[in-house]
Amino acid sequence: MCELLGMTANVPTDICFSITGLIQRGGKTGPHKDGWGIAFYEGAGCRIFHDPQASVDSKLAEWIRTFPIKSKLVLSHIRKANRGKVELKNTHPFSRELWGSYWTFAHNGQLKGIKKEPLGDFFPVGTTDSEYAFCWLLSKLKAKFRNRPKDESFLRKEIQKLLTSLNQRGVCNVLMADSKHLYVFCSTKLSFITRRSPFGKARLLDADMTIDFSEHTTPNDLVTVLATRPLTENETWTQLFPGEFQVWKEGALMYQAQSEAKSLTSNKNPRKEKRK
Amino acid sequence: MCELLGMTANVPTDICFSITGLIQRGGKTGPHKDGWGIAFYEGAGCRIFHDPQASVDSKLAEWIRTFPIKSKLVLSHIRKANRGKVELKNTHPFSRELWGSYWTFAHNGQLKGIKKEPLGDFFPVGTTDSEYAFCWLLSKLKAKFRNRPKDESFLRKEIQKLLTSLNQRGVCNVLMADSKHLYVFCSTKLSFITRRSPFGKARLLDADMTIDFSEHTTPNDLVTVLATRPLTENETWTQLFPGEFQVWKEGALMYQAQSEAKSLTSNKNPRKEKRK
Repeated sequence: MCELLGMTANVPTDICFSITGLIQRGGKTGPHKDGWGIAFYEGAGCRIFHDPQASVDSKLAEWIRTFPIKSKLVLSHIRKANRGKVELKNTHPFSRELWGSYWTFAHNGQLKGIKKEPLGDFFPVGTTDSEYAFCWLLSKLKAKFRNRPKDESFLRKEIQKLLTSLNQRGVCNVLMADSKHLYVFCSTKLSFITRRSPFGKARLLDADMTIDFSEHTTPNDLVTVLATRPLTENETWTQLFPGEFQVWKEGALMYQAQSEAKSLTSNKNPRKEKRK
Repeated sequence: MCELLGMTANVPTDICFSITGLIQRGGKTGPHKDGWGIAFYEGAGCRIFHDPQASVDSKLAEWIRTFPIKSKLVLSHIRKANRGKVELKNTHPFSRELWGSYWTFAHNGQLKGIKKEPLGDFFPVGTTDSEYAFCWLLSKLKAKFRNRPKDESFLRKEIQKLLTSLNQRGVCNVLMADSKHLYVFCSTKLSFITRRSPFGKARLLDADMTIDFSEHTTPNDLVTVLATRPLTENETWTQLFPGEFQVWKEGALMYQAQSEAKSLTSNKNPRKEKRK
């Protein structure tokens, strides 16, 4: 399995603090040492850094951790390989251009039989089921909408439908971005925290590091961080329900819906589970 | 205008020496300070680093210059903006997936009227004529060949035709890669050097740096570097003809052809020019 990290904010924000926690899990506090990657959007542009090395030993991760790239939308992934060798081509986040925007995708889980599904306009370069699933999802979107729908509700409904369908095949925790929105699907494990004024201190779970956000923010800042497991020990993170789909923009939750539970888990209705 | 740098080799090779020369031209020994980028292929995977800052001041460039990423195929570009603002989205090399491979593209020049041409399956994210031209070229390739032609000669003939057509619109010095091949088109200015055994010393033109390649190579290594202007002062670089198209693979020239000269320059037959 892998771990995911996402950030959505209404001001360009650096992710050095959170990434410092995450990269420890890539070989030190966690077993996800089969590569890592991170995508930073800057307007419509996107910089993606990939490294097939363990993040805890990666010179690139060390550089990213200490060099503050500011962004309103970030996606990161540390990998524990299941399907597909440890190679650059299999390192998340994956990226494709659709309707003149860069879409990026990071996935945690396995998706049984996805590679038997026909593809349309997007093809994988590597051998992971994750990249295949991303290509399948974008192929479906492009086949359905020749141009990006002006009404966002059409698009998010379709994305939710496709991610829910992927989730039927196994485990499908997903962060996906289109340069403005962060689309989130929780299959088994994802948490989020929204930080806003008054900002306080936070302490990492995986490294000896504390930050006082009040020293780095203004009163109007809104920053949401999502992660497979909470990254800090003194803050309250909200766990997503299995089957929950969210759309975030500039740090704010724009849409949230509960998909149908998987038939596999239908005896445990996730709607009845309490958020911790 | 901009400057281009490409490398093709039969063994994974670092480009720290050449890139040290090139980045000086991004604000110090040259005026190309509107961003820079570099793509390194590792097998089918590709890492692209983009920075809208002047390369000479870029912390990322400093990191790349000192951290040896080894690759058999590299493309780099330093930008002097003509069309499109100085922004991440307008920073070369551009990349798209076609037929399950990452294609990358770096361009020097201006292409009059290209944005009036209809596109097919690829759309620009930024506002440069270069990215538009790349999307146009890939759209044409995908429309012509549903899958990658098994006979490489069909593909290279089509690429040559498309690049020659772009060249009719202005200046079109291009480096384009598909993870194995480096496609090169010279409109006005491009040079190359092939280094092979016995390897010697080289001294940069733009920085006080000398390297003894014999200390870093084996007798079978074959490394070709292409650049807008030669990067070293004590080696003999070969200048491409205007209209010349080349295909390189693993350091070796696989194909070379002279396209028709532009009507604008038809009074000066480039075939009669001597290579320097």
